[in-house]
Parts: sequence; structure tokens; C-alpha cells
Amino acid sequence: MLIAAGLGSFSTGLFCYNRTTSAPEANDRLTPIYATREDLEKAVNEIRHLLGDDGISTDDEDLQAHGYSEWSSINIDRLPTAVAYPSCTEDVAKIAKICHKYKVPMIPYSGGSSVEGHFSASFGGVSVDFMNMNNIVEFHPEDMDIVVQPSVSWMDMNDKIKDTGLFFPVDPGPPARIGGMIATNCSGTNAVRYGTMKDWVINLTVVLADGRVIKTRKRPRKSSAGYNLNGLFTGSEGTLGFVTEATLKLAHIPEETGVGVATFPTMRDAAKAAIQVIHQGIPVGAVEILDDVQMDVINRMGGTGREWKVLPTLFFKFSGTHVGVMDDINGVCRIVQAHGGSDFEFEHDKTKQIALWSARKEALWSMMCLRTSGNEVWSTDVAVPLSKVPDLVEISKKDLQELGLFGSMLGHIGDGNFHETILFNGDREREMVTKCVHDMVHRALDMEGTCTGEHGVGLGKKQFLEEEVGKDSLHVMRTIKTALDPHWLMNPGKILDP
Amino acid sequence: MLIAAGLGSFSTGLFCYNRTTSAPEANDRLTPIYATREDLEKAVNEIRHLLGDDGISTDDEDLQAHGYSEWSSINIDRLPTAVAYPSCTEDVAKIAKICHKYKVPMIPYSGGSSVEGHFSASFGGVSVDFMNMNNIVEFHPEDMDIVVQPSVSWMDMNDKIKDTGLFFPVDPGPPARIGGMIATNCSGTNAVRYGTMKDWVINLTVVLADGRVIKTRKRPRKSSAGYNLNGLFTGSEGTLGFVTEATLKLAHIPEETGVGVATFPTMRDAAKAAIQVIHQGIPVGAVEILDDVQMDVINRMGGTGREWKVLPTLFFKFSGTHVGVMDDINGVCRIVQAHGGSDFEFEHDKTKQIALWSARKEALWSMMCLRTSGNEVWSTDVAVPLSKVPDLVEISKKDLQELGLFGSMLGHIGDGNFHETILFNGDREREMVTKCVHDMVHRALDMEGTCTGEHGVGLGKKQFLEEEVGKDSLHVMRTIKTALDPHWLMNPGKILDP
Repeated sequence: MLIAAGLGSFSTGLFCYNRTTSAPEANDRLTPIYATREDLEKAVNEIRHLLGDDGISTDDEDLQAHGYSEWSSINIDRLPTAVAYPSCTEDVAKIAKICHKYKVPMIPYSGGSSVEGHFSASFGGVSVDFMNMNNIVEFHPEDMDIVVQPSVSWMDMNDKIKDTGLFFPVDPGPPARIGGMIATNCSGTNAVRYGTMKDWVINLTVVLADGRVIKTRKRPRKSSAGYNLNGLFTGSEGTLGFVTEATLKLAHIPEETGVGVATFPTMRDAAKAAIQVIHQGIPVGAVEILDDVQMDVINRMGGTGREWKVLPTLFFKFSGTHVGVMDDINGVCRIVQAHGGSDFEFEHDKTKQIALWSARKEALWSMMCLRTSGNEVWSTDVAVPLSKVPDLVEISKKDLQELGLFGSMLGHIGDGNFHETILFNGDREREMVTKCVHDMVHRALDMEGTCTGEHGVGLGKKQFLEEEVGKDSLHVMRTIKTALDPHWLMNPGKILDP
Repeated sequence: MLIAAGLGSFSTGLFCYNRTTSAPEANDRLTPIYATREDLEKAVNEIRHLLGDDGISTDDEDLQAHGYSEWSSINIDRLPTAVAYPSCTEDVAKIAKICHKYKVPMIPYSGGSSVEGHFSASFGGVSVDFMNMNNIVEFHPEDMDIVVQPSVSWMDMNDKIKDTGLFFPVDPGPPARIGGMIATNCSGTNAVRYGTMKDWVINLTVVLADGRVIKTRKRPRKSSAGYNLNGLFTGSEGTLGFVTEATLKLAHIPEETGVGVATFPTMRDAAKAAIQVIHQGIPVGAVEILDDVQMDVINRMGGTGREWKVLPTLFFKFSGTHVGVMDDINGVCRIVQAHGGSDFEFEHDKTKQIALWSARKEALWSMMCLRTSGNEVWSTDVAVPLSKVPDLVEISKKDLQELGLFGSMLGHIGDGNFHETILFNGDREREMVTKCVHDMVHRALDMEGTCTGEHGVGLGKKQFLEEEVGKDSLHVMRTIKTALDPHWLMNPGKILDP
């Protein structure tokens, strides 16, 4: 792959405004033009002066690691010019001031596990890697909240606080870190019970495009004071500001948990059973659907220490009091049987629960491991209203088969959120996968759904946003972006274009 | 009270921009100047032409009812010029286009039960009353959501759908309607279990300042696609756009419910017991604190058919399965006893539950009924981190007593949300109440809390917002407001000033 790197990426240093007539209240539309090569060099030198030699890198390997992702559905032929490593909010603010002065794009980077090209350097510029900002700043068990920096891993954090009986319930992929989790409004298997990232943010410290630092709120668990900036910055993918600190709500570790697994003759049966569980109001901790291909892949990778039936499978988490969990399991068991499910297995013992859940946990990783030389992976998600899930799952499965693509299906089905992971090799197959994914997105939108339930828009889903929210909603988003970041310096090219 | 009404409210019809230097990225600050008397008349005539004579009123009584509230902590000496009664989104869009053309302020009105002057006509203009938009548009039990117009009452809605086993769990004051509930990001007693209004919005149809109509999303229960406009418009108090339709999530009616009541020697004891319940993770449906004054008022009004102990009191709601509810009650009972609580009463029977909860339900109404001629009422709320609640409650109680004011205290204490309702008469007492409320707000902010947990900012809390969120966060809010409503036509004077 040919990638333009280093200080070679530049443009003319002019700003160009075009009047548009596309909306009744049209603003002057901006075509941002970024720093000249000379100004870019000045900016990098100033950041080096600020952070020292260890605080900024222009090594090819670093640029590659911050501009390309093997997890991503999309990569581009451009890399950042430099990678900065701030240690505190003040550093980030100073970097932003420098970039603002020279009109240099800034791209935030934390866990690097996003899948829609979120940290691609669409216009070059400086990747801001928060790896040195990975501390728990304050922990208030008495208030059930925690203050963290953006590179804190949610898994490490939960490990550190577990003895207090509290935990953070949003559970995206293991490599995810708080900064990116906020940026994408991520969720995970627990969302059906606990909601998504935006529901757990108490306040954010944000560095704006011009280097000003704001804190969205103090520390109340609820508030009706002023615009909900938490809700606006969460999910904005670093395009409105960089989160440098976050106060997050915590939940109680349930008294008891359980894991259950059942297989079904068809994906439609499994999907219908899962939806019925939600319809009956059984408060499951999670309900996940995996297709036969995915189960086969897990078997082939052999990481779970057992042989699974190669059938559509539902995985359940249960949590609550002992009696509550037993109650919920009985309810789920009845529904599973009524939908042709069989072999309902349940584990109460903690260690055995982990073993039983391991197949679900290994799902994406197993697909990644299957890649051979030249193989690429495309992982995508959509979400639809609950009642549409069985149709979506069935049609998408058929589509994959008809195209002859090797892909597995998996869903946080209790939220109507559904994933496909497809392996491919070469341009012809990439074209087929593209069609398959685009068809699934259009199908989801036709069903009144969304082009992404939890992965975010990034570069990969940008083309669907107007179809999803409409031209005028997109114009509102663009108006907000331009108002807060007039030069489109923050993660430009993601979510929407000027 | 002298109130300037009718077409007499006007200004010069010029727009005046002042450059400010207060923020590094300062926009041109706007001093909006609204329609001339002539233009206002033209606007009213055009709206009359659009909606017919029944669709717009300039009767004094209507203007008074839409510009003054006996519930509110604040009223101003100005009324709207006219009240418009649209019947559909298209009507609202046309009204907005007319008001936009002539630079006429627009103020949304639904339940009229807000308490911080939210529907005051700070700059005159047209009050837009949604009373004719009170329909359930679509109901999708299979997707667990409902599409409603802004004047739908949450209580009526729940009554209509109850046979499906679903309900809408956000429970502010009985007169509240969906439009205002969204505008203030309201909550209520159920928030400790179910969250606040913003957590239940799937999409919004919004009329913007220039009359464009947007729909924020399609109908997925979760999404990471683009900026979270639901979260931005919810709680924006009609200053960014008017909500004309909303799709709301619904929850399952719990299998079983219960109500419990216990009294305590002091407010601190009661508060500490409540916080302990939350700390232990007992999933109560609600936990409410009422002080001795409030209990006495309820007795004096006699609306509940029994005599209550005049002591600090906690009211609990329980919900879940039969076994779960019994479990939770046992847990709460132990905590109550450990904190000096006594007379823990519990009701399982539906009718008796309603009787037991009646004291909590009658609380505000009882205070309102106590007013004699000339009496006014000031109802206010703040919220703080959980561990600060006992201090806040105790100091605020002492403050009220020392000032010799007649006020009662009540709190959604599981969220750290706390209310005072104070009766007063005349200017001297108004001054005392003002000091008392302002002291409570500053105390809450010092404790890292918020000036309002659920009532909203409106006119009454505007002066505290900068202290709460900081100058630059307020500037971000102002930037968003100006970007979306450049002429400051939508509910101007609320939340923030240009």
C-alpha cells in the first residue's frame, strides 16, 4: 500500500469560503485548507519545544501505527505528519493552540480499536496520542463516580475498583479506552441492561479547537442546567473537541450473575426468542446472537476448550439477587423452548460462567485469527427497531451466502444492534463486501434503523448519514461543527464534511 | 401587578452586533432587537390568515394565562403579544417562518407547569400553545416505543397504553406534558431507577428558528450515527427549536410493586439511610425524603385520609418480581432500622399502596393550598453528589428556620436531587426567600452540584449558569445558540443571554 507520509502532506495555506444555497438558512460553507508545509514544520517544532523530543514523533513506524488499522473497514493513503504524546490537559490545550495558529488538523488517538477509520489522518496533521494520560484521577465510591483520563482502559479500571463493589458497565471490545469510548458513544453486550456510553458521563473536560479548556458540568448525577454538552461531545468522534478527563457514573456489581447458552434451528428462531425475552421484560444482563458460521470459527480456533454445536446460538447474561437470577433463567428457558431452542445450558459458578461466555468473547478475535496472508477484515454494525431484527438477520444472512462471502454474524440483539464480520482478499472481493455492507445499511435504514448502533460513523459510514437523518439535520450538525471549530481542525473528514 | 400586554411591546427593528473580546474565539456577539410594532402586527395577521380566527388569540385573558404562572418562582412584567394554536408540525413551521421573517420572538407552551419562568415572554412575541397537538401518532408495542405530539400528557398516555404491559417511566408533576418534559429534561420520583427524560428519547421532530423541520433520527433504540441532537434539544428549553413530535422508549410495567414509609428523628438520619440504600445497590423504584414541615402541611390539608407523624419521612417505591420486591423490602428495612428509623410501613395491595403514596403525591399541592391571599410560592431544586446530600439537607433546613421562613423540603434523594417550597408574602419576604434560595444554590455548587436537577434554568436560574459550568462552557452554549438561531427568536431570555 502506498502511503504519503511525513511532511510531504500540505496545501496552500489559504481559506476558501463558498456560498451555498442548499439550505434556507445556509451559512457560508467552508472549504478548509490546511497548513502549508512550512507552517506544518513550524507547528511540529513548537510542539517538540513544548513536549520535548519524547513528546512528539515523526518516525515512519509511529505514523503508520497511528494512521492505519488492520481492524478497520476503511484505510486511506495518507498518514499523520507527526504523533504528539501529551501528559496532561494543559499539554493538549497548548498543542491545540499551536495547531490552531498554523491551521494543522488534529486527530485524537486512544485505544486504536475503532473500525470505521476514526483515527485516519484524512488531511494529514498531528495525531494526538493520549497514552501518557492513563490515570484514574479521583475515585469517589461514596458518590459512585470516578474521574479518569482518556487512555484509561475500562477493563483495567474495573479491575482496580472491583473490591469496592462498584464497576463501570459499558463493555466494548477489550482494547477500548475511555477517550475513544466517549468519542464513539460505544456500547457492548451490557447495553441492553445498562445503556450506552452517553448514559454514564457526568462531566467532561474538553479541549476545544482553539485550545480553550471547558468542563461541561460539576459532579451531580443529574442536571437540567443548560445545554447537555455531555450528550453533544459524547459520540462526536473528536470532531468538536478532545476529551482530556471524564467523570463517569459507576454501578453496583450485582450480587449474583449467571450465563446461559441455547442453540436454535435457524437465525430467525434465535432472533425471535431473544426479542420475546425483551418483550416479556425479563431483565437479562445481555442477550447475544451468534450465527452458525461464527460458532464454527470459534471451534476452528479452539480457544474455548470445547466443541460448540455449529448452529445459531443465543448467549445470555443474568444478574441480580440469587432468587432474581433463578427467576430470570426460568423465564428465558421457557421462551427458548417455545422457539425451538435446545440444549439450554446454564452456569452459576463464576469460573464455569467465564468458560461458557468465552465463545462470545472470542468471537471477533477468532475471525481475526482466521485471516491468512492478504486477507482483510470488514466489521460493521447497524441497529433497527426490535421487531425488525428477525427480518434483518435473515435477509442479511441470505445475502452473505448468495454473494459467496465468508462472513459471520453476531448481534447485541436486545438493542436491535447487529454486526457482520467479513473476510476478503483483493479488490474484487472488496467490491463485493462493499456492496454487501451497503445493502445491509440501506436495509436497516429502510427498517427505520441506523447505519451504526455503536461503532460510529468515522470515514466508513459518512456517506449514509444524510440518508439516515435527512439533509436539514445534517445541516444542523454541520452548523454546530462550524460554530465550534470554524477551521475544521479537529478530526476533519469524520462524520461529516463542510 | 402591572403587565405590559398586547401590541404595545415593540422595539426598533434593527439588529445590532457588538464585538466582544471576552473569549479567545469570540464570535460577533449579537444584541437581538425584535420586530417593530408594525411588523408584529403583520406577523400576527399572517398567522391569523394561516390558522384562522380560532388559531390565534390576543385576548387579555389568554395572554395572561400564557405569560404568568402562579407556580413559578419568577414572573415578569410583560406578556406575549398573541397566542397561536397550531394543529400540526406544518403549522408550527409556517408560524416560525412568519416570525423569522419579521423577527418576532416565539415561546413554546404545553403543560404550563414549569417553575422557573420558562414560558415568560421576556421580549413579547408569540406564545405557541400546542394544546391542539395532543395525539398519540403511532404506538409500536412490538418495538416498545410510542410517537406523540407535544401536548400529550404523560399520565393520560400511560393510562391509554397500560393494557399492553408497557409504560413511560418519567414522572414529573401531573400537569406536565411531553413537550415541556423534553424542554426541561425533566425527571421525577422514578429517575433513580429509570433515568431522566433524555434517556427515553428515540427521535424528535423539531421546527427550527427559520421554519425548517428536522427529524433527529429514525427509530433505532440506540445509535452512534452523527451528533446526538436528541441530547442537545432535550433540555434546551425551546431555545434551539420547538419539538413537534417525539418518539419515546417505553418500559415494562413491573410484575409487582410496593410502597414503604418510615420516619426518622432527624433529616440527616433520613438522608443517610436513603443514601445507604443506594450505596448497597438495592434497586428501589424511588426513594423520597419529606421533612417534618411537609408532613405537617399534608396533615393540615387532610387530603390523604390519615394523620401522619410530623417527622422526617422516607417514602420508597419497590418494583420487580414478587420475590425481588420482598428481598428489596427486607434490605431497606434493615437499613432504616440501623439509621434510627421507625414505624416502617409497607403496602403490597395496589389500593393501599396508592393511599400510602398519597402523602408524597399531595406534597406540592398541599403547600400550594396553604397559600392565603397575597401569598406567593417559590419552588426550587438543586442536585449534588450523593455523599453531600445529608450536609445539604441539614444546612438548608437550618437556614430556612433561621430566616423564619415557612418552607418545606422534599427530595428525590436517590439522585442527590433536593427541593424546597417556600411560601412568602410581600417584597421583604421575597427578598428573604431570594437570599435563602441563592444560598442553597451556591451551597450546591460548592458541593460540586448543579443549580437545578430537574426544573431547568428558565429565567430563574440563569444567573447561576456561568458559576456552574464556567465562562467558556457558557460560551460554547452561546455559540451553539447563535449558530442555530442567529436572531435569538426561540424562547429568548431563557437559559442564557446573547
